[in-house]
Amino acid sequence: MRRLFTRIGELATACGTEAVFGKAQGEIRRLHDAWLLCEGERIVSLGEGKPPEADEVVDCQSRLVTPGLVDCHTHLVFGGWREKELARKLAGATYLEILAAGGGILSTVRETRRASEDALYAKTKALMDEMLAHGTTALEIKSGYGLDLATEQKQLRVVQRLKSDNPDLAATFLGAHAFPEEMSHEDYVDFLCDIAIPAVAAEGLAAFCDVFCDAGVFTAEQAERILLTGKRYGLLPKLHADEIREIGGTEAAKRVGAVSCDHLSETGADGIRALKDGGVIAVMLPATSFYLQKPYGNFRGMIDADVPVAVATDMNPGSTPNLSLPFAMTAACLYGRLTPEEVLSAATLNGAAAIRLSDRLGTLEPGKLCDLVVWDADNLEQLIYRYGTNRAAAVWKRGVCRNGKETV
Amino acid sequence: MRRLFTRIGELATACGTEAVFGKAQGEIRRLHDAWLLCEGERIVSLGEGKPPEADEVVDCQSRLVTPGLVDCHTHLVFGGWREKELARKLAGATYLEILAAGGGILSTVRETRRASEDALYAKTKALMDEMLAHGTTALEIKSGYGLDLATEQKQLRVVQRLKSDNPDLAATFLGAHAFPEEMSHEDYVDFLCDIAIPAVAAEGLAAFCDVFCDAGVFTAEQAERILLTGKRYGLLPKLHADEIREIGGTEAAKRVGAVSCDHLSETGADGIRALKDGGVIAVMLPATSFYLQKPYGNFRGMIDADVPVAVATDMNPGSTPNLSLPFAMTAACLYGRLTPEEVLSAATLNGAAAIRLSDRLGTLEPGKLCDLVVWDADNLEQLIYRYGTNRAAAVWKRGVCRNGKETV
Repeated sequence: MRRLFTRIGELATACGTEAVFGKAQGEIRRLHDAWLLCEGERIVSLGEGKPPEADEVVDCQSRLVTPGLVDCHTHLVFGGWREKELARKLAGATYLEILAAGGGILSTVRETRRASEDALYAKTKALMDEMLAHGTTALEIKSGYGLDLATEQKQLRVVQRLKSDNPDLAATFLGAHAFPEEMSHEDYVDFLCDIAIPAVAAEGLAAFCDVFCDAGVFTAEQAERILLTGKRYGLLPKLHADEIREIGGTEAAKRVGAVSCDHLSETGADGIRALKDGGVIAVMLPATSFYLQKPYGNFRGMIDADVPVAVATDMNPGSTPNLSLPFAMTAACLYGRLTPEEVLSAATLNGAAAIRLSDRLGTLEPGKLCDLVVWDADNLEQLIYRYGTNRAAAVWKRGVCRNGKETV
Repeated sequence: MRRLFTRIGELATACGTEAVFGKAQGEIRRLHDAWLLCEGERIVSLGEGKPPEADEVVDCQSRLVTPGLVDCHTHLVFGGWREKELARKLAGATYLEILAAGGGILSTVRETRRASEDALYAKTKALMDEMLAHGTTALEIKSGYGLDLATEQKQLRVVQRLKSDNPDLAATFLGAHAFPEEMSHEDYVDFLCDIAIPAVAAEGLAAFCDVFCDAGVFTAEQAERILLTGKRYGLLPKLHADEIREIGGTEAAKRVGAVSCDHLSETGADGIRALKDGGVIAVMLPATSFYLQKPYGNFRGMIDADVPVAVATDMNPGSTPNLSLPFAMTAACLYGRLTPEEVLSAATLNGAAAIRLSDRLGTLEPGKLCDLVVWDADNLEQLIYRYGTNRAAAVWKRGVCRNGKETV
């Protein structure tokens, strides 16, 4: 069945199957008065002017069409919420007072341990549907609220079950998200390397292994040991680094050959050089900076140094309960000075590359999956500019309309 | 017809018919396992526990219910958009370069002059519908993109026409938004006082008169003359002040007896005292600060000094194209340190007081209009915390469901 998307006001897309960087990150393709032809779940062709014949026509009513967004950094499987913590913070409570009142990441760990797999599945599915309605057609989901084997596996099994709804999910084992209360730091790193990673890999539950390498969490040395162990078991390395302070996370990312290094709000020139030398994708999380009122990071320094920049939501119940990737894109432009073209690459092709899905999605090109969004916007700039509301009019995932009306 | 809203998880509302300030701004009423009974467009009663009998029942499924939000500062009637200006800014263009390229407020003036009344009506109606879908059931709309009599009247006639759709609109004459290119500053102030204000008042087109009193725009002296003229013609005074620099706007507000003074991101202790002494409502616009990357203003100083604080979107095509009041509420909490209770008062009762509608809306109390929102949130804190997406599940305006499903 050949389906034609016609009367596209502007079609904006990055090109290729690899992460783009430097000047190339802003050199996207922009077609006007355009069309796009699919067959089943794949794109066949696209162009400007007179469209080809098709079995079915979707009138895009002069709107903007982009690739489906790719959110390459989320913590979407968790028990509970932490809204009461926000209220305490606003009333002036310190971090230690919040911890004493049972808040912080360990409260999410408690709730996630308590929750059944079915309950977590239902909750995560609803959040994923909401993300889809905001234009996100592929995403990564991390574990990391178990800090014990059974709960980490439970989280990752939820991600595997979600693949029947959306096959373009990447699962990341983030056992090294925090230290559990019940054992020493040394014992926990041993447990991750000797027990958890082998078990997760044996069950095929994750494609990536991630470590929160920062002040007060895992050291660069611990991160390296965990990630190299993961690598031996076939899990590709990723890091959370430089969110609080530079403690060598970018250097560790380079040494272990990480696919991406994420957060990076405190990364300086040496760290940027390490990312460049290591061929590491920088995943920036500006919505977290907004919510925590912290620095956004040196986006332009990354672009100038030829580091590929991706942008993701970081959706999680503690540091940024926002699942709109367009909001993160606007924040990346306003506070990171990315251009609309650069941020589109960041939230599609580079996001896809950061979760190793860029061979099949992240751009609108013949042969790629028909993951696309028809936006209630005239052009790419308007998508970034009209922030605060959901501008996705229709979201197509592998050739199927998943939100909005089929004929928009 | 008696309609019962039942199974309300939390009902959160400010109380009264006047602006609240100081400690009272945070002392809202919070009911749990609650119900609310309406008859036609009015609220009859509300309470916890066993609900009364009714003709029709709306099951709120344990969700949060608040009064409809009141957006007391918007520039919703305008021609064109200015998304290309954002792109130029991000690419490094200066303000003067943007002006030279035909951007800035005068470009919106050109587009608004060019647009037909019907086109402006259709566009504004669509934006108002989108605001309604985000929980805003009453709002203010300013003119100010005409800077000539015919266009200012055209904008205000659009607002009058919109009242057939939503009677709870306040129209503000903001001829003093900028200086037009075609006459001297002195001549324009004379024109506003001698011609525009009398004409607007004669036609009954506005309830308020507003002046942008700031560095490079209207002086405090000019503002005072314009607002006192407006007052003689029955238009209640409002000011934009201290967005760029303190030039005496808060003092002018006190002297003319302004209903509200808006922006105030640069207001210091003396300005806060002037607002307090003048009984002026402070309308804070945090989404504008977010978009322009500017200071948010001293929210807590206002609360501590017993100045009533309202929060509004400032929706406009130049400095903040966001129409979600919940987003502005979250920003007010994160960056202004308002508590969730204080910001609810700010975006309902105090917003209503700032446009003189607090006798009939802004709280959920017997006798007031049945303007309410059922939120996809368990409690007030979650509404503020889960930012970035639209959490309004159903919006009721004067007892009629205007968005979402009737039975949510």
